[in-house]
Amino acid sequence: MAPGSIDTQQTTGPERRDAYAHAGVDLDARGDLVRRIRDIAARASRPEVLSGVGPFGALFRLGSYREPVLASSTDGVGTKLRIAILMDRYDTVGQDLVNHCVNDILTTGAEPLFFLDYIGSSALGAHQKLEVVRGLTEACRAHDCAFVGGETADMPDVYGAGDFDLVGFIVGVVERADVIDGSKIAPGDALIGLPSSGLHTNGYSLVRRIFGIGTGGDAAADRRALERTHPPLEQPLGEALLAVHRSYLHELRPVLKKLHGIAHITGGGIIDNVPRILPDGLAARFDRRAWETPALFALIQRAGDLSDDEMYRTFNMGIGIVAAVAADEADDITQAVPGARIVGDVVRASDARRVIIE
Amino acid sequence: MAPGSIDTQQTTGPERRDAYAHAGVDLDARGDLVRRIRDIAARASRPEVLSGVGPFGALFRLGSYREPVLASSTDGVGTKLRIAILMDRYDTVGQDLVNHCVNDILTTGAEPLFFLDYIGSSALGAHQKLEVVRGLTEACRAHDCAFVGGETADMPDVYGAGDFDLVGFIVGVVERADVIDGSKIAPGDALIGLPSSGLHTNGYSLVRRIFGIGTGGDAAADRRALERTHPPLEQPLGEALLAVHRSYLHELRPVLKKLHGIAHITGGGIIDNVPRILPDGLAARFDRRAWETPALFALIQRAGDLSDDEMYRTFNMGIGIVAAVAADEADDITQAVPGARIVGDVVRASDARRVIIE
Repeated sequence: MAPGSIDTQQTTGPERRDAYAHAGVDLDARGDLVRRIRDIAARASRPEVLSGVGPFGALFRLGSYREPVLASSTDGVGTKLRIAILMDRYDTVGQDLVNHCVNDILTTGAEPLFFLDYIGSSALGAHQKLEVVRGLTEACRAHDCAFVGGETADMPDVYGAGDFDLVGFIVGVVERADVIDGSKIAPGDALIGLPSSGLHTNGYSLVRRIFGIGTGGDAAADRRALERTHPPLEQPLGEALLAVHRSYLHELRPVLKKLHGIAHITGGGIIDNVPRILPDGLAARFDRRAWETPALFALIQRAGDLSDDEMYRTFNMGIGIVAAVAADEADDITQAVPGARIVGDVVRASDARRVIIE
Repeated sequence: MAPGSIDTQQTTGPERRDAYAHAGVDLDARGDLVRRIRDIAARASRPEVLSGVGPFGALFRLGSYREPVLASSTDGVGTKLRIAILMDRYDTVGQDLVNHCVNDILTTGAEPLFFLDYIGSSALGAHQKLEVVRGLTEACRAHDCAFVGGETADMPDVYGAGDFDLVGFIVGVVERADVIDGSKIAPGDALIGLPSSGLHTNGYSLVRRIFGIGTGGDAAADRRALERTHPPLEQPLGEALLAVHRSYLHELRPVLKKLHGIAHITGGGIIDNVPRILPDGLAARFDRRAWETPALFALIQRAGDLSDDEMYRTFNMGIGIVAAVAADEADDITQAVPGARIVGDVVRASDARRVIIE
């Protein structure tokens, strides 16, 4: 070692070496964690990933396309995170996030290529972070999506101890000629609904207020509220609230070319989301007797004394995807896609309303 | 309006209509904010963006490439956010973030294509969010990067009132033949350093601990600490800490094909970041007299009683990028790139050390 040089292997006293660890950011523990995260994430790879290259950014070779269009989206899980933390279950939120992202780009007809995550936290344990990453990896694998990178940020004084936020970014690809943009939607089209698996990732702040869960009170009381059953809801409330946001890629892939438009029913419900794909002058008319609203939504409405309007513009009400198709294709599609059913039709808009729920 | 239908234009009493707003998520205000964010972000666009398409995901037509490789990265700003909040300055952190992302993919030789952001917050004002978005947009424009989308999440009970986290995601492209991966780095290569503009986005939790800023104490005392001057540092401490993380795209673009490897000096300093690009068996040897360490770092070291080792593995110490080049190209490059200087060389590793600072 040259005089005056800094020995990067040196172990000095903890009062020095650990200064950054005491500030809430332990670089040694972090290095170990990053390696373990990489090992797990590497299970969701694809041949196009240039491995061992790009330490500061991931590299992905795009295959052969005529006119490739890259579809991208970013999402969070919302305060469903607080339910997960209270239930000490860290493996499902990663699945929620990937599936949400997959659905978002699926609305354009795109197939996933790669995914990156961000976990911002303070004093969140390595075990918990790894469980989150395992969930992300599992969901990436299920969609043949490469989990190419991410950032794990220690943010003392931004997050409370044990709290975290989780953000996902996805990139997919679709041929220009196959982009689904809603422009083919016409009066008379049938609206096909696909069932949701629960609240997906929206409405959790309202639900937590209604049931008084994770709003700053006693965690033991929060947990009791989550363990309670509310017949006819068959599961404890917490289990129902933590149900994984499902993805629709595998179900819709075989029929994508027949779909005129796809809306992912996220925050804002069918009232806010379906108009996003409708051409001007058209409205979506839903027959709410066409599907059974799951018991969880009725429970929330009753407990929160919420209007129908509030329910339909906050929650998915049992429908995770709405797709528009030519009326004469509708039966074929409901037969081909598990759980799909006709839930309404497209009409000319007679006033400012873009969604009519009858 | 049909009997039993839900009028989506209906205005009901605030006790109903505002239930979600009371839970910390105001969908009406949110809709207005999202439109304003879109209007600002649209100023950073490119012809490849399919506008008006993809309400759930952004679409970007990839142009003609022989063998396109997509480079991607995600980053946060770390707890530099707390400095920005205390100084009531929301326009710089977005620039920090985009520039950080641009640098990350630049290490592979990639040019930016598009960017997405995520803002998670609770009770953060619309003005503040828009300032963040303006900063993001300005920095995207400066790099001809399309700002194609993002997510603004209201997360009551995850973030404290007025607190937020900010995450960015970038995708760029590089021809397969032009990928910079460090494999050409050889013994005898010169190491070129480019000056940083300050701490960039790393080491803020430690610095805040050292100066007692934004660690849960009195905000007025925090602000006084940020306004204080510490000669010979010419600016108030807060101004120095908030200096924007600079990007190196424009400076390095003309010489990219001559570079054997590029390391972005982020968390972990040159000690952790330079080895990420070095082939096995090689080490980077720095001559610390080759550049002047800015006064801010000496101030931090003195105030925190930190070892040299801790400084060099936490902070960039005045060097934002380290690039390896053939020794006989080094002078041309230092003349072509503003601020660039030779800061060391590549040697065969004689022991486990990958970075030697003399």
